[in-house]
Order: sequence, then structure tokens, then C-alpha cells
Amino acid sequence: MPRTLNVALLGTKFMGKAHSNAFRQVKAFFDLPVNLNMKVLCGRNPEETKALAAKYGWEEYSTDWEAVIAREDIHIVDIATPGSLHEPMAIAAAKAGKHIICEKPLANTLPEAKRMLAAANKAGIRHMCGFTYRYVPAVMTIKNMIQSGELGDIFHFRAAYLQDWIVDPNFPLVWRLTKEGAGSGALGDIGAHITDMCHNLIGPISEVSATTQTFITERPMPEVDTGIDRKKRAGSKKPKMGKVTVDDAASFLARFEGAPTIASFEASRFCPGRRNHHTWEIYGSKGSVIWDLEHMNYFQYYNAADPDTKQGFRLINATDPGHPFTENWWPPAHIIGYEHAFTHEVYDFITQINRKNPTFPTFEDGVRCQQVLDAVERSAKSRRWEKVKK
Amino acid sequence: MPRTLNVALLGTKFMGKAHSNAFRQVKAFFDLPVNLNMKVLCGRNPEETKALAAKYGWEEYSTDWEAVIAREDIHIVDIATPGSLHEPMAIAAAKAGKHIICEKPLANTLPEAKRMLAAANKAGIRHMCGFTYRYVPAVMTIKNMIQSGELGDIFHFRAAYLQDWIVDPNFPLVWRLTKEGAGSGALGDIGAHITDMCHNLIGPISEVSATTQTFITERPMPEVDTGIDRKKRAGSKKPKMGKVTVDDAASFLARFEGAPTIASFEASRFCPGRRNHHTWEIYGSKGSVIWDLEHMNYFQYYNAADPDTKQGFRLINATDPGHPFTENWWPPAHIIGYEHAFTHEVYDFITQINRKNPTFPTFEDGVRCQQVLDAVERSAKSRRWEKVKK
Amino acid sequence: MPRTLNVALLGTKFMGKAHSNAFRQVKAFFDLPVNLNMKVLCGRNPEETKALAAKYGWEEYSTDWEAVIAREDIHIVDIATPGSLHEPMAIAAAKAGKHIICEKPLANTLPEAKRMLAAANKAGIRHMCGFTYRYVPAVMTIKNMIQSGELGDIFHFRAAYLQDWIVDPNFPLVWRLTKEGAGSGALGDIGAHITDMCHNLIGPISEVSATTQTFITERPMPEVDTGIDRKKRAGSKKPKMGKVTVDDAASFLARFEGAPTIASFEASRFCPGRRNHHTWEIYGSKGSVIWDLEHMNYFQYYNAADPDTKQGFRLINATDPGHPFTENWWPPAHIIGYEHAFTHEVYDFITQINRKNPTFPTFEDGVRCQQVLDAVERSAKSRRWEKVKK
Amino acid sequence: MPRTLNVALLGTKFMGKAHSNAFRQVKAFFDLPVNLNMKVLCGRNPEETKALAAKYGWEEYSTDWEAVIAREDIHIVDIATPGSLHEPMAIAAAKAGKHIICEKPLANTLPEAKRMLAAANKAGIRHMCGFTYRYVPAVMTIKNMIQSGELGDIFHFRAAYLQDWIVDPNFPLVWRLTKEGAGSGALGDIGAHITDMCHNLIGPISEVSATTQTFITERPMPEVDTGIDRKKRAGSKKPKMGKVTVDDAASFLARFEGAPTIASFEASRFCPGRRNHHTWEIYGSKGSVIWDLEHMNYFQYYNAADPDTKQGFRLINATDPGHPFTENWWPPAHIIGYEHAFTHEVYDFITQINRKNPTFPTFEDGVRCQQVLDAVERSAKSRRWEKVKK
Repeated sequence: MPRTLNVALLGTKFMGKAHSNAFRQVKAFFDLPVNLNMKVLCGRNPEETKALAAKYGWEEYSTDWEAVIAREDIHIVDIATPGSLHEPMAIAAAKAGKHIICEKPLANTLPEAKRMLAAANKAGIRHMCGFTYRYVPAVMTIKNMIQSGELGDIFHFRAAYLQDWIVDPNFPLVWRLTKEGAGSGALGDIGAHITDMCHNLIGPISEVSATTQTFITERPMPEVDTGIDRKKRAGSKKPKMGKVTVDDAASFLARFEGAPTIASFEASRFCPGRRNHHTWEIYGSKGSVIWDLEHMNYFQYYNAADPDTKQGFRLINATDPGHPFTENWWPPAHIIGYEHAFTHEVYDFITQINRKNPTFPTFEDGVRCQQVLDAVERSAKSRRWEKVKK
Repeated sequence: MPRTLNVALLGTKFMGKAHSNAFRQVKAFFDLPVNLNMKVLCGRNPEETKALAAKYGWEEYSTDWEAVIAREDIHIVDIATPGSLHEPMAIAAAKAGKHIICEKPLANTLPEAKRMLAAANKAGIRHMCGFTYRYVPAVMTIKNMIQSGELGDIFHFRAAYLQDWIVDPNFPLVWRLTKEGAGSGALGDIGAHITDMCHNLIGPISEVSATTQTFITERPMPEVDTGIDRKKRAGSKKPKMGKVTVDDAASFLARFEGAPTIASFEASRFCPGRRNHHTWEIYGSKGSVIWDLEHMNYFQYYNAADPDTKQGFRLINATDPGHPFTENWWPPAHIIGYEHAFTHEVYDFITQINRKNPTFPTFEDGVRCQQVLDAVERSAKSRRWEKVKK
Repeated sequence: MPRTLNVALLGTKFMGKAHSNAFRQVKAFFDLPVNLNMKVLCGRNPEETKALAAKYGWEEYSTDWEAVIAREDIHIVDIATPGSLHEPMAIAAAKAGKHIICEKPLANTLPEAKRMLAAANKAGIRHMCGFTYRYVPAVMTIKNMIQSGELGDIFHFRAAYLQDWIVDPNFPLVWRLTKEGAGSGALGDIGAHITDMCHNLIGPISEVSATTQTFITERPMPEVDTGIDRKKRAGSKKPKMGKVTVDDAASFLARFEGAPTIASFEASRFCPGRRNHHTWEIYGSKGSVIWDLEHMNYFQYYNAADPDTKQGFRLINATDPGHPFTENWWPPAHIIGYEHAFTHEVYDFITQINRKNPTFPTFEDGVRCQQVLDAVERSAKSRRWEKVKK
Repeated sequence: MPRTLNVALLGTKFMGKAHSNAFRQVKAFFDLPVNLNMKVLCGRNPEETKALAAKYGWEEYSTDWEAVIAREDIHIVDIATPGSLHEPMAIAAAKAGKHIICEKPLANTLPEAKRMLAAANKAGIRHMCGFTYRYVPAVMTIKNMIQSGELGDIFHFRAAYLQDWIVDPNFPLVWRLTKEGAGSGALGDIGAHITDMCHNLIGPISEVSATTQTFITERPMPEVDTGIDRKKRAGSKKPKMGKVTVDDAASFLARFEGAPTIASFEASRFCPGRRNHHTWEIYGSKGSVIWDLEHMNYFQYYNAADPDTKQGFRLINATDPGHPFTENWWPPAHIIGYEHAFTHEVYDFITQINRKNPTFPTFEDGVRCQQVLDAVERSAKSRRWEKVKK
């Protein structure tokens, strides 16, 4: 491994901002085994990219991702662009022998995702799929608890990821609401997170029964497409309308090979009051846990072995020493924010970059997640249980 | 209508105790249009029934329910026995021209339930199916809000009824865990409650996709069968084992005729820490509500029309004046308990006993609920969506 | 002890209703060592009292409390009238040899309270001061925990009783807002509750530093004085105004003889949104507890001995078996209401009625509470710490 | 104003880390009117300071704060050292004409604080006292609400700052537990925060009645003094003991000139389970708010004007657009962490650095806070109300 690793980040929007922050902050709060260099930020608009590169702390900027990937001095390519660009970027980076971090969902379709994995495997590079929420300390503690048997046999995984940013029928038809742009709607965007969380904590889903719904089927075309902004409204009085081609909500039940566990999932962008309500409950023979992204520093834990009159869910602030990564930040109960999980993710990637079998989420996890989403879409059509196809 | 209505209550256990309380308390806290007389309590064991009749405030006791139903001076028969006895008792009471309150689930099977409804209709008597939770003031306020359009179009109904009293594999095979005794397991016992709540608040379910699971398939035979007591344990070291013939958990998705609403249901007795966690969330275009039986005096309400920096779920204590029935009890925030809903139920039954089309839940609601449970069981077997058959 | 105890209840309003309920319900849910007879209800208005006696289940009614107390067949006198009547009623009852339950505060002034205690002691009768909240199961469990040392040495008792029913300046000048009627305002009404709770759980307060405030000094005279009803408003446009002669809020710090514990108390009727927010936190060397009347079935418990990554307040539903009185009611997590504590109170009184040194709160506790309130009023004037005078 | 502002930070521990982060992050998330340069980090240990300077992003390091302050190219001096060093550093910086940010408490004693203010005023430089919690978005929204009259007249401010890091009697006698090192204990450390918060939101306190307590009066001398670490324990079996010379807890009541508001304050390090429980409730004639640092992204709001059956505290996530600073970070309900408030603080300082009357907290606010703490200590001794002396 070189003493210095140079990073190129593709993408400058919401995820570009979050990943930039992670590279900048990981150096200030963690001890890395290498020099990590924020080399080049890549975007479409030259002025904007130049300004953001300076603001976010990148040495250089570029509007030519292919040229950037081709550079010899780049060791890591981080892909934080819309899903439709993931495949070409990842395959180019793999062929160029770069290590890759790619935002989730790994791709808009299962075939794309599989080709990405194949290319990465062939190239022998390290590849990570950015399932960031695995890196929230509370989630990591819960994973440790499950793996050490503290919850016993798992009976139920009950998950929901609920948002409300498109309830208004006048919210415009941004790329995230089109099949070409995003592959699917709530399912691929936020359903992917709870699906991966199930894989992360419980195990691989083997079959699903699903239903999906598009509540608002036509929306005004946007003047400029700026992604997620729940307050955005169509401007002109009689805007041109376009067809929403993705789901607004997806709900599914899931079962597992060789285990009686029941899992349920609900992903929706039509839940007023739920800005970013990513939550799940896990019930096991020895205890239960509850977690919720909007209060991500906390989790609830019920220990079935507590004495008779002392039984109840306790609210644990996972900033105490002993919870992963917390000692790198602040004293107990000085909470961390949403973006810190990206910093942990980058830290984990860098420190395992020489391992053949790293424990971080890889393109394989990305494909596995996509396979479930594929089964969900098939089940929503066939109206019966569908197996997750490998 | 006679100036005095005499009641006979069949059943002395958990529900017998709760119904006795309701008849006793309704007179002390409400103004009734008639004299309501607690005439006779009916049980199997003469000594126990005699003692309980005295304790609970019944004038007489009996061990012969058929004789009691035949008595001319009885106007109302309240059936609070195990499900397998509902049909014969209800049909006898209907034939005798008595008004009937019957505990939920209306029967152990759909055919039984239908015969009960037919008998009741033929007799022209008033009939109520005891879906008690409809009578919690917070729930009644929510129903009023939905009916007056305050939540707008409903996108999601997300319900769970989770308990934990049989997680221990040594918990014995009581009647509630056998098909003969209870018809089904978590599904008919607690799944019935959330199914009816959906009917009560949202509308009739038209089709379902379900999965069920029995986590513990064999259990020790009980020495005495005393119903629900989560601390009960098999006594002898090598107890005789018996087969659990009902579900421990049932999860299903549901859809509706003519509306895009998605509903999800989870009923389980395998959720450690959840003693009696009956909860649902309703998301509509104008707002959302959340309710939870263990905090039954409260509900959460999100009003999408609140000003920008003032948006959030508010926690409303439904004991303020204006919430149904609250002024009959105590000042604001002096909370009421579980059993008060039975009192409201009895009040509603008595005050509408002369109406041809009462608004309380009837045997029709009981049958409608049973039809959904039937579809759930069919779907769990066929592994596809099943229509709710009328 | 006679086989039957006849009770006379003086007072028919809020407390009369609550006490009536307790006598009625204690027989239905508890096994008493005697027959408890609801003999006579005593009120001022004959029609109303007659109707309420019938409704609440009393055999007879009367408007002549002195005559009732004089009756030979009465064994227990329960005083649930405004504070200014407590002394004459209690002294008469004591002289007549009746056992007495008296609502809190024991009296409007300390001298009255002391005379009541002296009379009760001289008569050798059983006397209870109705500090009802001692009888909430969660509170009883907490008391057991403190007494068995589970919380270790107590550092802090932090209490508040906050309400909001008189924030509106147009709320009329009811008797509770006058010195003649109520003795003091928030202090004696709700401050008394948290003071007694401190005595109940921590120990006798030895000195206090206080401040009090009357936020609205003039209010419209009421047309009819009906006690607490936060929605009540003055009717006429230019009502006659009267002077508020009690405190709207009282805050004080307290210390204890021989212990370093710090206690703080806030009682206010000027806290919008707080309908009945009676809450306290107790911090001890081994753990902490938090309780809140509006969620009275629950308490929070922090066990300092929990393992490092499992530390947090757990939310315990005190309806599980093992919590006092819960098995007399319903299964776990089927919550009880505000009025149930009165039932426990009556049960405790009846079952200890023959004991010389009963453990229930007596007139001594009533006097002890009054002594603290007296010191609070002295301190608010002197603007320095004042000793609680015995 | 120069186009570039060079900053020198004095202090490398907890606060040094937090302030470094703020300077680094403010450039990446905010648009500043100047170039802000992280010029030099100043600490005692050369190796450690050098390493931290590199890690935190400072251009240079130094162990000679006097030399650093004397440098012409330094425009801003940020003092993040223990309280005993604040005065010499601030006075030197003022004399050298540097703008100053100084951590709270402004000084260990009131005379020191006053001399600092005098020096700053004389020099005509901008000075800020780092009351960081003013910069939490939820707190800023609440301040806006109070200032615009949305809460009406304020009746109560009820505050507590409770921690638990020194409950263990074996926790060593670190500098924060000595009068020489820290001036006072819980009072100056965390009591200062809630005192300033009262000044920030309600207005200047005019008099106080207080009590303080040291629960553990002797502690083992530390081997190395490393500040706050609740898990730290004395090592050797029979450690040398030293005397704790500060308070472990301080509670006080406060009143205001010309307003009837009652305020109460509790600061304690002896509240097991409370890691960092900084909380307050504000009750006003039109509504109430509740905030809690451990859930700092949220606040509760009760609007007394809500319709009758819709009244309750709503839980508002202050990450929605419209809440101050939130749009610089992430989409709604993607929460921010503890350290972000420092970033806002630095942003506010920089953008107002040319204003004569900036709205940020200055040394005057630092002195005003110290004056209250001084009155608290006098009152704890005199055992009577003490005026806050100007």
C-alpha cells in the first residue's frame, strides 16, 4: 500500500457533500494508517464544481470523470452520482484498478449491479457499497448484541422507512420520481436501506410478498431538477404534466431460508410528519431492540432476563465509551449527527483496504439488496410470494 | 322498552370480570334512560360463581346458561365465554328474543359467526360484538377526525398488536393455543382487534396477503387451564407434551376496494417487552395520527397545515373536555384505565337499544372481521393474495 | 371489630365522587376482612345528594353531617369537603369515636390541623390523611426500592406539580382562589402532594427557602362556584371583580436533618399544557427513578450497576405481577386509571383498621405536611431559610 | 477588514478539539465574507500540540501563547484553556488588539471577568463569550418565538443541568474539582450554561436564593489530570487523598426586576443516568416550550390557542427549513450533532466582526453570568436572598 491514498469523488450534490465531509473529518478525528488525500472533485458544472472543491477541501476539480478515473495518481474512486451513472463509472474505475466506494442503491437495475460486481471481482480491487446506516454506533452495538447471542433467536424484524417530501401533488416530477432516473421510487431509495439493514442484522431474505402503490400518478414537470426538497413547488399556473413511473410506497413481508423469522418492510414517501423515519424493531427470545434514525444516538433494549418488577425497555444513549467509534468524538451524551456515519464508513474502508475479505458492505451486499428489490417488484406484479433469485 | 333491563352475564373469568365492572360502573358515572339491573351471573363452578356474583354485584348466580337464557325476566344476554361457546349461546339467546352482547372474536370459525348473525337478524334483536377498543376516547376522537376529513385521503394504516406471554417454551398448552379451543392463535385473539380497528377507522378490507408462524410447536400439557398468565410454568420435570395447533404470529398486507390505501398488520405473542402493545399509525394527505393501547389516554397528531417551523406530532391527552365520554369521569389529565372502555361500550349499547340501525359494532362487524381472518388463513396457505369472501 | 363497617361520606363533588367509587370498587376487586357498607352520603343540596347517593351506590343520604356523625351505626367517617370544613367535621367524628379518612390538605391552617390530630389521638381512633398518590402501584414499587436500598444514598429529590386551569385572567374567583376557602393556592392544593411525596419517599423536610407569586391578582366573581373547570369563563361583560388572596405558584428548596440531600419543589397553576403534571425525579448513589402522574402506570429506572453499554433509563410498566395491587386488576399492561389509587387507599385503611401503628398516612403526616407549607409561607415573606417548626 | 483573518487557538483538549472543528467546518458549510485561516494552535506539550495541529488542520503550532498573541498576522485569538488562564490570555490579546473568543465561564472569579471586560472594551475589539448552546437551532427558534411574543408573558423558567460523571467516590480530584482550578464546581461549569440560557431567553436575573452541596468531600489525588472521564478510577490501593473544594451540586431560585417570572435552576454532577441532561421548560401565557440538550435537534411546543381537542405538546424537529442554520447542513430530520453549535457560533462571530453592537454573547454576558454565580455563592452562605451585584 502506498503511504498516501488519493481520492477522487464523483458527484457534488447531497451525497457529494456528505462524502466530502467524511474524508475531511476522518483525518481530524481518527488515526489513519495512511495519508488520505482529497485529490479531485468531479462534477458536471465547471464553476460550481470549482467552488465546491474549494469549499469542501479538494485539491483539484474536474468535469471529466473518465479522465479522472484514468489518472495514475488516483487510488480510490468514490461514486456519489445518480444511480443511472453508477455502472459506467464503477466499471471504468474497476478496469483502471481503483478501489471503489459506491453510493447505494448499487445500481438502478439488478443486471447493472451484477455487472459492477463482476468487474470489481475481476479487477481484484476493494469495493464498498455505501450502506451508511450500518455505521451508526447504536446500530453497530445492536449488531454486536445479535452476533453474541444477547437477543437469542430472532422472531421478528419489523422495519419502516417513512418520509413525506412528495405528499403535495404539486411537487414536481424530479429524476427520483422516474424509472429512467432512479430505477424505482420509495422502494429503491429508502426500501433499500431497510432491506440492507435486515441483511446486516438478521440474514439474507429468501422470499417476499409485496404490494406497491403510486398515489399521485401525474405531476408537473420541474423547471430545474434539484433532487429532494419537500418545499419545492411547481411555479407556473398550468405546468406541463408528466407521468410518475415509480412507486410512492412499497410494503412487503419476507421470510428466510432455514429460520422461522418473519420480517416486514414499509417504505413510503406519503407519511405526513415522518421526515426521515427509518425505524425497526427486533424481537428475539432473550430480548428486543428498537432503533430510529431520527434519534440515531439512542436505541431501546429490553432484556428478558431482568428481574420481575424491573422489566422494561431502556433508552440507551450509544455515546458512552464502549459503543463503537464514540470515543473518537465527544464525551458521553454529546450527540453526533447524521453525517458522522459516513466518516465511520470511510474509516472502515481505509483501514481494511488491504484485506482480502473485508467486513464492510461490498458490491455483493449491493447486489444482494438489489435482488430483494427485484423480487419485490416481481411479487407486486404476480401477486404471490416470489423467491429472491441469485 | 321496559323501565328496567335485566342482564345475564355468561362467563366469570377475565372478560366476565371486565363486563361485570362495566355494568356496575355505567350506573355510577352515566345517566341511563333505563334501570339497568345486574340480574344473574352464569359460570361453570357453583361455589366460585356464587362468590363472584356477590363480589361483582350480581343479584343471582347460576351454572345453567340455558335455563338463564330461557328466563322471561332477562332482557340482555352478555356472552363472555371462550369462543367455542359463542355460537350455541348466541343462537339460544336470539331465539329467546334477548338482546345480545358477545365478546370478540364473534366465533372461532366463519361459518359459526355467520349462523349467529343470521339468527340475530331473524330474531330482530339488538346485537353487539364487543370490539371494546372502539370505545377508548382517543380512538373515538380519531374516528371523528377521519370522518370529518381532518386527515384527508388515507394513504397508510400500519398496525401491530404485539404481546409476549408465551415466549417461554415451558408455558403450557392452554386452550388459547389450540384450534379447538380458540380457532386460531395470535390472529383471532389480537389480530382480530387490529382488523376491526381498520374496519372501524378506514373501511372494509378487500384482499390480503399473509404469512403465519408457530415458533414453538410443542408445549407441556397444563395441569389446570387458566388462560393467560405469562408467568405460568409447567410444573413437573418431564411433563406430557402436546401439539400447538394455532399460529404464534400472523403478519399480513391488505388492500381496499376503490381506494389506494395500503394497510399492514402484525399480530404476535412473541415480542419480548411488548406486554400489550396494540398500536397503529394512520397517514393521510392532511395529517397523521398514532395511537397505542398501553398509553391509551393519549394520541399523537400531526397537522400538515401547521406553520413551517411549528410542524411536529403533538401528544394529545384525550381526557380534555370535548373528547367523548371524558366529562363523565375526572378532570383533564386524570387518566382512565383499560376497563373504562367496556363501560362506554355498555353505555352505547343501552342508549341505542331501541334503534333499528345502531352505530355500535354488531354481529355484522364480527362476521366482517372473521371474513378477513379467514382470508388471512387461506392466503398463508396459498401463498398469494386472497379476496375477502362475503 | 364488627363484622360490618358502615361508612358515611361527607362531600359529593370531585372528591366525593372519587371516594364513592373507591368504596364501591374495593369490594369488587379485593377480598376484605369485613363487610364494608356504603351507608350514607352527606351533602348540602338535598335533591342533588339524594340523586348522587343512588347513583354512587349509597344506601341513604343526608344533609345534616352532625347528625350523621352522631349515628351509632356509623363506624367510618370520610371527609371529602372543602378544607375549611375539615376541622369541625374531624373533631366531631373523633369525639364520636369514629375512624376517619380525611382528604388532603388536612386543614387550611396548621393550628386547625394540629387540633384535628390532637382530637384523633385523644379519641384513639384510626385516622388517615388522604395522600392518595402514595397508592399508585408505581409509587409503591419505588418506595420499596428506596427502603431496600436499591437506589443507595439519595442526592436529589426534584419535584413539580404543574397545572394550567387558571391561566385565563377571566377564569372566575372560585373558592380555591381565596384564603378563606382554601388556605393557600397552588401551595396547599398541589404543593401539598409533592411535599407529602417527599416525606413518603425521602424523609421529613427540616428547612425551606421559598418564593411565591400571584400572577393574576384580580378576577371576576363567579356566578356559581363549581370548583375546578379550566374552561369556565366569566359570563357577563363587565363582571364584578374580586381579589385573589392565594398564591398562583410556589417554588421552594428544601434540606433535611442529618442528610445532604437537596430537594426542590415547584407548584404552579400557570403552566400552559400541563394539565396535571405531577412529577419527580430521585437521584441516588446506586440508581435513579422518574415518575409522572399523567403516565402513572409507568416509571423510569436507571440502575447504575448495569453493564457499560447497556446503561439507560428503562420504562417500566408497573402493571406486571409483583407490583403492589396489580394482580387485583387486569393482566400486564392493561393500565389502571387515576381513581384506582383511592381504591387502594381504602383497602389499606380497612385492612389496617385494627392496628395501633398502621403504615398508612395519618393525621400526623397531614400535620407534618402542613408544617412544611407553613414554613414555606414564612420563608416567602422573610426571604430567608426557615425551619420547619414542630 | 482584511480579506483574510488568521486565527490562533489557545488550548488543545476537549474545547480545543471542538473549536478546531468549528473553524474547519464553517468554511465547508457556510459562505463567509472573508478567508478564515486556521493559523496556529497553541498548547503546552510540543509533540502533542504539533500532532494535533496537523490532525485538526492548523498551519502551525506553538507552545508560547504570549508570543503567538504578539504576532502581527494574528487577527483572532480563541481561548479554550482552563478558566484560571482566561484572564491573562484575554487581557494580553485585548492589549494586542486581537478580536477574542473566550470559552465559558469567562473566568473563575467575578473580578477576573470584570477586568477582562474592561480590557476588551478599552481595546475596542470584538469579544465573544462562548455560550455555545445559544447556537443550537432549536434554541434559536425558541428565542425567536419568545421575542416575537408567541409565548406571551413568561411565568416560569425551570432549568436543570444534570450530569453523573463524579458519583463514584473513587473518581480522582481533577482540576475541575478544585477552587484554584475551576473557581467553582457544578455551579460554574454547568450552572453557568443554564444561567446564561435564562439571560439569553428570559432576561437578567436580579436576585437569587441558593443552596450548594459537596456530597463527596475527599477524593484520591489523580496520577494524571485529564479532565472529564467518568470511567476514570484511582489506581493504587491506598491513594493519597485530597479535599474537594468546590460544590458537587447547586440549586437556586431566581427572580427578575420588573417581572413576576419565577426561575429555578439545578446544577448537579450527582444524578446517575443523566450524562449531559441540560434541560429547561418555559411557561408563558400563550404557550410553553421544553428543550433538552441530549435531544438537541428537537423541542416541544404547546400552543394554548390550539383547538380544544387538539391541544398538546408537539415534538418539533428543528432541522426543517426555516429553523436557523439548518439549510446549511442536511435535509430535514437528518440530525446535527453537539459540535455543530460551535460552528454556528464561529459563523456568527465572523459575520459580525465589524459590527459595533454585535448580537452574539460578549464578555458582558460572561460578566453578567458570573455576577449571578457570585450571588448564588453569597446566598448559599448567607442563607437568604441575595441581589445580583453589578
